[in-house]
This record gives sequence, C-alpha cells and structure tokens, in this order.
Amino acid sequence: MEFEEKTLTSEKIFDGVLLHLVREEVLLPNGKTSIREMIRHPGAVAMIPFTNDGKMVMVRQFRKPLDRTVVEIPAGKLERSDTEPFQAAVRELEEETDYRADKWTELTTFYPTPAYLDERITLYLAEGLTKVQDSLPMDEDEFIEILELTYEEAKALQDSGEICDSKTIYAMLFWEMRLLQKKIGE
Amino acid sequence: MEFEEKTLTSEKIFDGVLLHLVREEVLLPNGKTSIREMIRHPGAVAMIPFTNDGKMVMVRQFRKPLDRTVVEIPAGKLERSDTEPFQAAVRELEEETDYRADKWTELTTFYPTPAYLDERITLYLAEGLTKVQDSLPMDEDEFIEILELTYEEAKALQDSGEICDSKTIYAMLFWEMRLLQKKIGE
Repeated sequence: MEFEEKTLTSEKIFDGVLLHLVREEVLLPNGKTSIREMIRHPGAVAMIPFTNDGKMVMVRQFRKPLDRTVVEIPAGKLERSDTEPFQAAVRELEEETDYRADKWTELTTFYPTPAYLDERITLYLAEGLTKVQDSLPMDEDEFIEILELTYEEAKALQDSGEICDSKTIYAMLFWEMRLLQKKIGE
Repeated sequence: MEFEEKTLTSEKIFDGVLLHLVREEVLLPNGKTSIREMIRHPGAVAMIPFTNDGKMVMVRQFRKPLDRTVVEIPAGKLERSDTEPFQAAVRELEEETDYRADKWTELTTFYPTPAYLDERITLYLAEGLTKVQDSLPMDEDEFIEILELTYEEAKALQDSGEICDSKTIYAMLFWEMRLLQKKIGE
C-alpha cells in the first residue's frame, strides 16, 4: 500500500516565539490533493524523577490553553544550544525542581500528536536525587510550585483532573506498573 | 501561590481547516506581561480495541509532520454534530477499522501537550468486537492500513519507532500492565 503524501506547496503561516505554523498542499496516494496544517516545534524533554523515599517530583503551573493549573512531571523545550536531549533534561530538572539526579535512564521518545505537530519528547527516569543549593534560575515567565507526591496523592490529583497531560498520565501508569512489579518481586 | 495569567489582548493569527492559532498577551502573577501562542483544536477520541483473541487493532497511516508512516490506535477528531465524545468513538472505530464494539469503557481523558494546545482526547477501551459488513466510509483524504497485532508484534513496532505517539505508547503500557495483572491473577 502506498502512503506517501508529497508536498506540492508549502506556506509559512506564522513564525512565533515558540510555534511555527506551516500549511502544505499535498498529493495523496490516489492522485488527489489535500491541505495539511502543521505546527513545527523545537522538541522537548520530560523526566520522571523519583526521590530516594519513593515520591515522584511534579510541578504545578498555569496552562493558558486550559485556563487553569495543571500538575505535570518536569519538562522543558530544547534550546538551540542543546547538542542532545539529555543536556536539556539535566538543565530542566534542576531549573524546575532544584534537584540533580545521579542515575538517568532514557525510557522512550514520543510525539504528543503527530497528526499535525512534529514535537518530539524524550522521556527519562531520574533517580538518586539530591537538592541543589545554588540552583539554576527558572525562565522569567515561569511560576512553578514543586510537589513531592506519594502514589496515592498523585492518584488523587489525577482523579480530580489536575494531572491530565499525556506525559504525566504515562508517568502515572509507569508508576503503577513499577509498584505492581515490586509487589510481585519481578 | 498565585498562578493565574490574565488575558490582556487576544489575536487570531490563523483560522484553518483543523487548527486555529491564537496569540495572547497575558499578565503574569508578578505583574509583568508575556506572550502565549496557543492552538485551538476541536478535541478527539481514541480507542484501545481488543479483538476476542486478545490482539490490539491499530492503524498505519502517513503523518505529514513526521514525513513517514506511524502505527497508532484508532482515533478521530470530534465533529460539530457530536453531542458527546462517545458518539465520535463509535463512529471513528467503525470508520477506521470496520469494527463495532459491544463493550466500551472510558479509561481516561488527557491533553497531549497543554502548554500550547487545548486538544483533549477521551480514551476508551473497546471490547467485544465484531466486523461490520457495510461499514462507514473513511474520510476522503485518509489512507489507512488496519493491523491486528499480538503484544510481541506491537512491541517490535514500538522498538522500531513506528509506534511512537502519546496515545499509543500509553496503550502499550496499559497492555503490558493488563498482561502482568492476568499473569498474577489480579
């Protein structure tokens, strides 16, 4: 089966601070044409940070598209100067949570919504956390509350809807799995 | 802690077929202002469909933002006529996979990336599948290959990177959890 959609014309609609919107006319496999509206994004990292007593570090912040606060695992977008996502992960964990991690494991990479967005998130497990005294400052327009949550506390935030984004519901399922594996000694 | 960002000005940048881009100037809790670029999206549904012999139904399609094919669980966006997400779920499962489900369970709702996008996905478990003879036609510009995968087959597609979007990696972790729970009789 032939799937490829060839680009016929590509038009930059918007070049923003964060987002870049492109509109392309594509040639479909059946010879017809269609319009694809796409967002270009620099990519991001996210971390599942466990404290030494088994809590997960999350952050509460206001998310303007939803007009309310959301509790999420720490994350941040790649900067031009990042030669690899791991560099961003170390920086963003410290900026957002004041923690450094001893042990990093790359878990997966994923696209939040590849139908119209090319953002790619690399997800890490961050363990062996120690508080940084003289931590990196946050971005100027970030207002963040740092939370250290037990599984039950985080589950309550998920039930109330404050934990609701793709990377964090993945982290919750990862945590549930990990607890089950520990319970049965796997 | 005060989090709210008040909208000072709101500007429609682009009104597309699918995407609507808004640029807002907001008042931050510290009295400064910042720019928020946001995408408005009508919302979507996604389904984790299990066949009666325990395979998961997925679809392969070309995703222009990545310029390659991606294997995903079935999904579709809400139409104006949908009074609730469930109506879209029933339609999209049939349109994309030619299956109807006897047993539906709402698993969760999530936002792929709430930092700049308001898309909300309602995720269902769809079981008790039967093939529809006279199925709903697909959208004109959709080219889809229907796959029925064992866990091992799906895992191989995840390892190769063809399974890579947020809803489908969540479905994979959900599946792994379900298999583990069955194994230990929970």
